[in-house]
Amino acid sequence: MAESASPKFLRPATAPGVDVGKAMTFDATLSLDAGRGLAPWTVAYMTYGTLNAARSNAVLVCHALTGDQFVIGNNPMTGRPGWWPSMVGPGKPIDTDRFFVICANVLGGCMGTSGPSDIDPATGKPYGLSFPLVTIHDMVRAQAALLDALGIEQVLCVTGGSMGGMQVLQWAASYPDRVVSAMPMATGARHSAQNIAFHEVGRQAIMADPDWHGGAYQAAGTQPSKGLAVARMAAHITYLSEAALQRKFGRSLQNRAEISFQFAPDFQVESYLHHQGSSFVDRFDANSYLYITRAMDYFDLAADYGGVLAEAFRGTRTKFCIASFTSDWLFPTAENKRIAHALNAAGATVSFVEIVTDKGHDSFLLDEPELFATARGFLNSVAQSRGIA
Amino acid sequence: MAESASPKFLRPATAPGVDVGKAMTFDATLSLDAGRGLAPWTVAYMTYGTLNAARSNAVLVCHALTGDQFVIGNNPMTGRPGWWPSMVGPGKPIDTDRFFVICANVLGGCMGTSGPSDIDPATGKPYGLSFPLVTIHDMVRAQAALLDALGIEQVLCVTGGSMGGMQVLQWAASYPDRVVSAMPMATGARHSAQNIAFHEVGRQAIMADPDWHGGAYQAAGTQPSKGLAVARMAAHITYLSEAALQRKFGRSLQNRAEISFQFAPDFQVESYLHHQGSSFVDRFDANSYLYITRAMDYFDLAADYGGVLAEAFRGTRTKFCIASFTSDWLFPTAENKRIAHALNAAGATVSFVEIVTDKGHDSFLLDEPELFATARGFLNSVAQSRGIA
Repeated sequence: MAESASPKFLRPATAPGVDVGKAMTFDATLSLDAGRGLAPWTVAYMTYGTLNAARSNAVLVCHALTGDQFVIGNNPMTGRPGWWPSMVGPGKPIDTDRFFVICANVLGGCMGTSGPSDIDPATGKPYGLSFPLVTIHDMVRAQAALLDALGIEQVLCVTGGSMGGMQVLQWAASYPDRVVSAMPMATGARHSAQNIAFHEVGRQAIMADPDWHGGAYQAAGTQPSKGLAVARMAAHITYLSEAALQRKFGRSLQNRAEISFQFAPDFQVESYLHHQGSSFVDRFDANSYLYITRAMDYFDLAADYGGVLAEAFRGTRTKFCIASFTSDWLFPTAENKRIAHALNAAGATVSFVEIVTDKGHDSFLLDEPELFATARGFLNSVAQSRGIA
Repeated sequence: MAESASPKFLRPATAPGVDVGKAMTFDATLSLDAGRGLAPWTVAYMTYGTLNAARSNAVLVCHALTGDQFVIGNNPMTGRPGWWPSMVGPGKPIDTDRFFVICANVLGGCMGTSGPSDIDPATGKPYGLSFPLVTIHDMVRAQAALLDALGIEQVLCVTGGSMGGMQVLQWAASYPDRVVSAMPMATGARHSAQNIAFHEVGRQAIMADPDWHGGAYQAAGTQPSKGLAVARMAAHITYLSEAALQRKFGRSLQNRAEISFQFAPDFQVESYLHHQGSSFVDRFDANSYLYITRAMDYFDLAADYGGVLAEAFRGTRTKFCIASFTSDWLFPTAENKRIAHALNAAGATVSFVEIVTDKGHDSFLLDEPELFATARGFLNSVAQSRGIA
């Protein structure tokens, strides 16, 4: 086994002894858009706060590409804090003193929900590329089954940024009566050509790594760490903005006074990228990265509604609040506004806020007071309309 | 030898039988910014048109990262047309009926000028990573030596886009009396943090390829084709614009009616990127890609002048014409304007044009009538002021 291999991924995340939070396994087949079924299948999830007696205070949080169910607190799989502590928690905009927050690892993921690193019960070997390709809709179907099992018929709000926002839109379209309100952020109703292109670069980097072994690296005892790191580095640039990179790093050198005239990382921005790449391979599975990026590429909500996005929301009673960020070039304001326009055309109740920041796509994860104020106000209003204290 | 290896790069481009156009070898040491010297060294170049008796009609064209000396006509090393036929040729803005056009392959390149794929005379083996790192300034020093050898004291104009524009700026700063006019396009006086980041992703992709062999792939009889293709794919996205990608490809599928639920390229934009990657590895050397991207990263013209860009041009009599493109996010208008502002501050004669197009950074290579009209008008005026028919 290569030293760089992360033992975490040489066994399924659902194996005994791996703390994925809560998990539920379903024997009934999950029917997928790919035309195949998955059975049995597992969804790993976390909850925060308390479900009230009326079961009316649930907030479903949907995570982004490399996120997981550990929204706040300690993530036992990485040993690091959760990914949305600024938004979720006691007294935070998504207040766990008032709301019952649920977050599930997405289908295809590597944090306990069924994905390509799991053991295929039919063969006793890891699925690898024999795991069916999944879509955003499939991810949402899995979450709906989880809510059914938890006895939650309706959620007060479903929210998330980036790929999380795609799931929010799919929830609102597929289960309008189960979604009182929806708060998608920094997202799109379809993946753009440029975004598909960046994802394909990442996938090619992984597949070019001989340690990938056609996806069967678990059996080979390897990990395509170099390819996955390159994929992460390329993607990470798209999560920031040119202005933020210039402000944070500019042309500053890393621990040296002069350029080295070597290929080692002279610039701080290079060291930063290297760190992003190397820390990512310790916590993420390469095949899951392939599957989840593909699910995002495939997302085109209007395509299921005759090419007219408004039709996805026709007749909806869900209340929407959409947030975009001025410096987000992955899901620019224009793409978020397309959703708002479609909702307007469908006669839905929608508010839209564009937040001025130079922090790029990742702004939804960062300290953005205007975002917090918007989310808090929207959730308060929705909760009050439902008589939630 | 791997089948994907391109035999072109298993020998130096300067070897007998490889048509690099014209070439000149210098025995005198070329002193480099890295503090090392190179001797002997070769510069491969092409000329178009005729030098007039006064030797006053020379136009030096500087190529970009992956360009070469074959500006127009057939490129014998690739079998494809030259890279700037819209701008250079009989009756074109840079009119070879009037001007004597010179273009040299850059130092560190792989089209005949000394670079890492050459044989190191001291060892009889390919340089690989023992070739000294070069800078934009070094590239310009090599071109200046070539002009000396050709008996050309002064050029009527030096022009180029992207990295070519960096060389233009360096020429104007280092040899102001040799440059009557300068026409940089789609460029910057420094490489930004984001641009360094994208280059580092490409370099890491190459270095992650086991066929790279620490740069000694010629001896190993391999080529890091997969890594180089990934590098090219990532870079190619930055040469276009989101709008152009959406217009050209959108979410159109490649030769299929439905998504395949596989990892093959479903989308046209993926097939296009794959083609860009695979055709690039047939014509470019991976180590040269490392060296030349590093030269661009190192470029920061102001740094040599106390951090004040205007000081690079203080007292210049060179006339400048700068062109930027609205959708260029690699070298955005703001970066080009910084140059114009510095020239203004230095009291230089400068005109600036921002051309509205959705074609992105590569616009300077494409059919942009306003660019052609600008270049034609500028060169006409400069030629007339010098009494050139």
